Amino acid sequence: MRITSYQNSQVKNVVKLQKRRERDRQRKMVIEGYRAILAALTNHYPLDELYYCPAFFFGKNERDLLDQAAQSGARLVEVAEGPFTKMALRDRPEGLLAVAPQARHSLSQHRPTANSLYLVAEAIEKPANLGTLLRAADGAGAHGLILCDARTDLFNADVVHASVGAYFSVPTLECTSQEAIAWCRRHGICTLAATPHTDRVYTTVDMRRPLAIVVGTEQVGLSAQWLAQADAQVALPMFGQVNSLNVAVAAALLLYEALRQRGQALNP
Amino acid sequence: MRITSYQNSQVKNVVKLQKRRERDRQRKMVIEGYRAILAALTNHYPLDELYYCPAFFFGKNERDLLDQAAQSGARLVEVAEGPFTKMALRDRPEGLLAVAPQARHSLSQHRPTANSLYLVAEAIEKPANLGTLLRAADGAGAHGLILCDARTDLFNADVVHASVGAYFSVPTLECTSQEAIAWCRRHGICTLAATPHTDRVYTTVDMRRPLAIVVGTEQVGLSAQWLAQADAQVALPMFGQVNSLNVAVAAALLLYEALRQRGQALNP
Repeated sequence: MRITSYQNSQVKNVVKLQKRRERDRQRKMVIEGYRAILAALTNHYPLDELYYCPAFFFGKNERDLLDQAAQSGARLVEVAEGPFTKMALRDRPEGLLAVAPQARHSLSQHRPTANSLYLVAEAIEKPANLGTLLRAADGAGAHGLILCDARTDLFNADVVHASVGAYFSVPTLECTSQEAIAWCRRHGICTLAATPHTDRVYTTVDMRRPLAIVVGTEQVGLSAQWLAQADAQVALPMFGQVNSLNVAVAAALLLYEALRQRGQALNP
Repeated sequence: MRITSYQNSQVKNVVKLQKRRERDRQRKMVIEGYRAILAALTNHYPLDELYYCPAFFFGKNERDLLDQAAQSGARLVEVAEGPFTKMALRDRPEGLLAVAPQARHSLSQHRPTANSLYLVAEAIEKPANLGTLLRAADGAGAHGLILCDARTDLFNADVVHASVGAYFSVPTLECTSQEAIAWCRRHGICTLAATPHTDRVYTTVDMRRPLAIVVGTEQVGLSAQWLAQADAQVALPMFGQVNSLNVAVAAALLLYEALRQRGQALNP
């Protein structure tokens, strides 16, 4: 069965899923493109349907991906170019688009590993920033992204896209800031709050212990509760006119400084 | 004179400037929002017109900004809410929008300072990445962004927006990659090419000398000419599943490692 009609109910439903309200009502998300779908399969993220349009395939690996998806239990549905373009979010569709359930993980169920390295992000607003935070956490080998009081939708396609696959490799643990603070204390994880309002430069803080690096919103930084309750505040030196760095850039600088101190990024 | 008509020729012209072709034809750009316009004025970037709509003002500093703009030579034009919304690019307009000339700076005319720290970005495609690169360069106090073979438009409003003002504080020097390589050699500036295709971890390279950090495109990294002709290749360790970091994240890690080694970010 190949879908050729723009009026097909599945085509219409995927278009509907571009709206957050509809995603939440159906508890579904859309995963688009080869790299994102491969990352989902690699990390055993369940897919309901995989819509494909061979005319848009970029390379030769798409067929293997279809086989892998089918083996994982996804229903494969071929779609003609016209309706596929309507379903696709990206300007240059790759001919691959999956619908998947929304998987949520709560922090309380998560067990930290030894020598923990977590990234905590509070009240992030922009989907692309959340995706780039996940990508940075993946690069640094962080054990999870603890997402507190999120103001963006974790199931927005732009989060998946900006993460370049890290969406599926890094566990995202949702909670309130207060729950995150309590969880870190309970597990002996030192919390380092990134803020410009301290003289303590990030390279002067010992990061060779179980650690959670905490970054705040794009606009106003961390909330008062994090600044009051974190084990230490750390600043990134700013030598220009702008008073802060992009939140994902700041997070990456702190994560990689932890790796450097731990000898994982080799001291000079 | 307050503009109240949607059909006003100035309103229509600002809308036209959303298209690159029109920006390039008129050699103009649009600068929107309080922070960006303040940064432009602070750095003596000339403004032709400043359109303002008091109903959209966020705070109380806008009037001072208008005075400052007028003193710098900008023509102030009040616009009613309806037509202003049509001119504005942002979803939440701040009631401030300037039209300015396109200022271009060529590398050949630029004189490096002592203990140089430059960021070189090759073939960047996404306006937001270019803006975030400028913000990282500003934070690290880099002396300029050398933009080689750019595939994005430096005068796209998203570049200005993502830079959070760094657009005006960090000189952007346009050239070809070959010109940048020659310029660095001529001035004794060591070029460090970021690439996953080396075992040399970034923290093991001496960055306490005149330095240019070179990062490549989002998709394929640096070109063969940079990899062959840079003084050294450096890698950022990757501990996850994704094989690269966001280009602005990678640039910031290298710039801040240079600061750390130079003692500017205080060694632990």
